[in-house]
Amino acid sequence: MLTELKSKIRDVKDFPKKGINFKDITTLIKDPKALQQVIEIFYVKYKDSKIDVVTGIEARGFILGSILAYKLGVGFVPLRKPGKLPAKIISAEYDLEYGTDTLCVHEDAILKGENVLIVDDLIATGGSVQVACNLIEKLDAKIITVAVLVELEFLKGRDKVKSYDIFSILKY
Amino acid sequence: MLTELKSKIRDVKDFPKKGINFKDITTLIKDPKALQQVIEIFYVKYKDSKIDVVTGIEARGFILGSILAYKLGVGFVPLRKPGKLPAKIISAEYDLEYGTDTLCVHEDAILKGENVLIVDDLIATGGSVQVACNLIEKLDAKIITVAVLVELEFLKGRDKVKSYDIFSILKY
Repeated sequence: MLTELKSKIRDVKDFPKKGINFKDITTLIKDPKALQQVIEIFYVKYKDSKIDVVTGIEARGFILGSILAYKLGVGFVPLRKPGKLPAKIISAEYDLEYGTDTLCVHEDAILKGENVLIVDDLIATGGSVQVACNLIEKLDAKIITVAVLVELEFLKGRDKVKSYDIFSILKY
Repeated sequence: MLTELKSKIRDVKDFPKKGINFKDITTLIKDPKALQQVIEIFYVKYKDSKIDVVTGIEARGFILGSILAYKLGVGFVPLRKPGKLPAKIISAEYDLEYGTDTLCVHEDAILKGENVLIVDDLIATGGSVQVACNLIEKLDAKIITVAVLVELEFLKGRDKVKSYDIFSILKY
């Protein structure tokens, strides 16, 4: 099944810049069967983990994250870029190759001690996953795991968040 | 039930600018019961409509759109801002109060003649819904309906897309 799922991911050369081979997940999520299979893998893994809330990282993390929240019967909380969330927020920054980027969450979105599942489409160098973990830590919630569809193992993103469990379905 | 769902939407005054009373849906989607109820309303309405694909408008439209695609057993296609989709795209523009904004879709994401359901969180002046309809038309697909959680009726957004059916759950 994993080989079949991998065949649904499209490689796009030189995006977003020359030399990068981009893993395009849109070709997988537009495939009904592949989408159901991915959610089933996540669901089976986490259905007994007492997850209180699923968070997703803007914007592709919203897609798998919200479906998984629905399937687990819990709420979904978006982690967003600055200027998007209307109420009181907390934020955390992460370093990019050039400059920094920021993620925000409503400060009342997750309660102290809640069990949180963080979802994104892909882990590469691990910057956005790291800042997502920092944000959840600031809310004094408990990170159960980070779940991603695709992991680019050669970029060693999971080394950035060594204190947490990272689960990926498709490894490259 | 609709009154209860409305009570889950948070009003945020003066966001994104002074004088605007922003309808914050994050408080609804983090509520497990409310999220299930919203999806059930959409699902019951569209389960027999022979939908081939659900599209969602970046970024909040990804949340309800992807869950609904999953529930209907079809694929999900994101309509995104420029620079985000890696493969060949087509795009359409819409006018904002100041300047224009653009949405893009992969040109191979939706096939000619497919039945498309467009999802967003909210319809206000209707600009983004209008451009989403234009994009789907450019692909020669068939727009079955536009489904939104919240409609600000006083802004008359549905007048911008008179040729299509608009369905909203919560009206203000």
